[in-house]
Amino acid sequence: MSFYHTPKALSAFDAKFEAQKIAFGPISFQVAHCLLKFEVLATIDQAGEQGLSIAQLAQTNVLNEYALGVLLDMGLSMGLVWLNGDAYVLDKTGYFLLHDDMAAINLNFVQDVCYQGLFQLDKALVAGKPSGLAVFGDWQTIYPALKDLPAEAKASWFAFDHYYSDHAFPQILPLVFAHSPKHLVDIGGNTGKWALSCCEFNPEVEVTLMDFPGQLAVAKDNATKHGFAERIHTFATDLLDESRPFVEGADTYWMSQFLDCFSQEQILSILQRTAQAMTPNSQLFIVETFWDRQPSAASAYCVNATSLYFTAMANGNSRMYHSKDLIKLLHQAGLYVDEDTDNLGLGHTLLRCKRKP
Amino acid sequence: MSFYHTPKALSAFDAKFEAQKIAFGPISFQVAHCLLKFEVLATIDQAGEQGLSIAQLAQTNVLNEYALGVLLDMGLSMGLVWLNGDAYVLDKTGYFLLHDDMAAINLNFVQDVCYQGLFQLDKALVAGKPSGLAVFGDWQTIYPALKDLPAEAKASWFAFDHYYSDHAFPQILPLVFAHSPKHLVDIGGNTGKWALSCCEFNPEVEVTLMDFPGQLAVAKDNATKHGFAERIHTFATDLLDESRPFVEGADTYWMSQFLDCFSQEQILSILQRTAQAMTPNSQLFIVETFWDRQPSAASAYCVNATSLYFTAMANGNSRMYHSKDLIKLLHQAGLYVDEDTDNLGLGHTLLRCKRKP
Repeated sequence: MSFYHTPKALSAFDAKFEAQKIAFGPISFQVAHCLLKFEVLATIDQAGEQGLSIAQLAQTNVLNEYALGVLLDMGLSMGLVWLNGDAYVLDKTGYFLLHDDMAAINLNFVQDVCYQGLFQLDKALVAGKPSGLAVFGDWQTIYPALKDLPAEAKASWFAFDHYYSDHAFPQILPLVFAHSPKHLVDIGGNTGKWALSCCEFNPEVEVTLMDFPGQLAVAKDNATKHGFAERIHTFATDLLDESRPFVEGADTYWMSQFLDCFSQEQILSILQRTAQAMTPNSQLFIVETFWDRQPSAASAYCVNATSLYFTAMANGNSRMYHSKDLIKLLHQAGLYVDEDTDNLGLGHTLLRCKRKP
Repeated sequence: MSFYHTPKALSAFDAKFEAQKIAFGPISFQVAHCLLKFEVLATIDQAGEQGLSIAQLAQTNVLNEYALGVLLDMGLSMGLVWLNGDAYVLDKTGYFLLHDDMAAINLNFVQDVCYQGLFQLDKALVAGKPSGLAVFGDWQTIYPALKDLPAEAKASWFAFDHYYSDHAFPQILPLVFAHSPKHLVDIGGNTGKWALSCCEFNPEVEVTLMDFPGQLAVAKDNATKHGFAERIHTFATDLLDESRPFVEGADTYWMSQFLDCFSQEQILSILQRTAQAMTPNSQLFIVETFWDRQPSAASAYCVNATSLYFTAMANGNSRMYHSKDLIKLLHQAGLYVDEDTDNLGLGHTLLRCKRKP
């Protein structure tokens, strides 16, 4: 990590401007959301270098000249568009908002899942609870609520969740199967995306998913649809309930984008129980996006921002961790890191862990 | 205006990062709000270059290590703080968020007045109504609602409104009184801030405020308190009601931060009725913050962002205008610009207008 260890090289004038950008951040966000939603950026993009005037845009848009004007003039200030005479032309930042699927997925996730609840961030921080989740109903954490979220929020949540794993899994599969797993226990396996990938990648591996019964019903259904019903098994449990048993003695355990959903105390408990279930020859793979292991300050920004979703909306006490904090918990649980691979997918790290002798 | 007429000189990488900053804008905003509210930045500022670790900060803060950690790690990504070993030190952008009263006033205005209602921006744009105002009750515009807003929203609204006029009035007074006004009609005079300034600046001038009866009651009270009851008069009306008369034949008319509260159609109507009330020797002064007359892209950003407050929260159809649009309306109303002075206060323009012969 080469960033954050010195003050930013920024003039006082630029720093004042940055402070104003933060202060008006919700406005620039909603402007971007509307310019995308009403397809203003897309229409301007199609017009190329020549651009389109407000009057031209108003001819085919549901928005009138006033509405297009306030959006696009703020778009000028945000670097989304520039003015060629009186015609608005797409600028680089607007291009990436329109064409970079990661930006779109993040923006929709913030709009549909986080925006309203974030207003309660101050309360969530004090209470250690996801106070913003009240926007969607009376839940203790977002996980059992997922199936009941409004359609847009649900779609944006899963799009966000899957986008990152979809980019990581193809690179990670060969690294895992280089260690010839026969029986992989997927802890917090959710709806079985990784289990299916494993069964497709290797003709013999068996997978057991540990998760809430609700998730497993969906996973079992997915397994059957893909013809893997005989190799994908389920083990219903509540992973935070310390009285419930773990699947014991498998050669491989697996946790992907899972530990970031828990507080440090809960992670320690889960790791301790995993270590107990492991044999001296078992391996535990952990996939995480650690903020300190990101390839750039830009990706660290996204990872750090995501932590606040956990605070305000998900469970109030988890986050995207610094790798140092997680490795400390691994050691406390009686495990050590045997292999440590960064820069997989979109800033993922794969840790292969073993029980300390 | 030297900005917006060419594409931004930005690498693709930086533009992608800008797009992500916009996508996570509501998160960075709430992080800044909480770092200020819980006095984390202020405490770090006091520690100077040496900074403070999370553990040190947690000793005296209402927030625990987890809460401080998610806020401050995002603060690193936002350039608010940097890491000196494991101690967080205030960085330049954090310094201006903490010490620049304009940033604080804008941030509080966005948080307390705009944040929740901005979620309805898409609806407001389509309907031409301030759909976000429903957050505060069933109002058609924010103006009659001001006295009934929740205490925090009310305080932040008036702080925002007065901040900009407080910076402009001292520079503008001598320019206006160079033309020796004897009777100044303050159209949309609100609670009488400008009227009091005039009476203090010049011992003879008489001022008549035109506004809603509610506002004028407060203004009359203020005038009496300052000993100007005999020189400050009131004329209760609804300025949008075309059947109601104007104060006629005064030598000077005055509209400060007023026309931006109306749509172009409404502005034209107000200007036409003002022109009718004027004599050939009358002058009309208009004070506005035009986005195209701003001294920098940074101040234009703030002005353009403010337009969306009018869209979502205030009345749904007004904005901070381009000077060209307002001057066109002046001409249509039978007026011309006789003197045109930019860069007063914080990006204000003073127009002195006369009736066309």
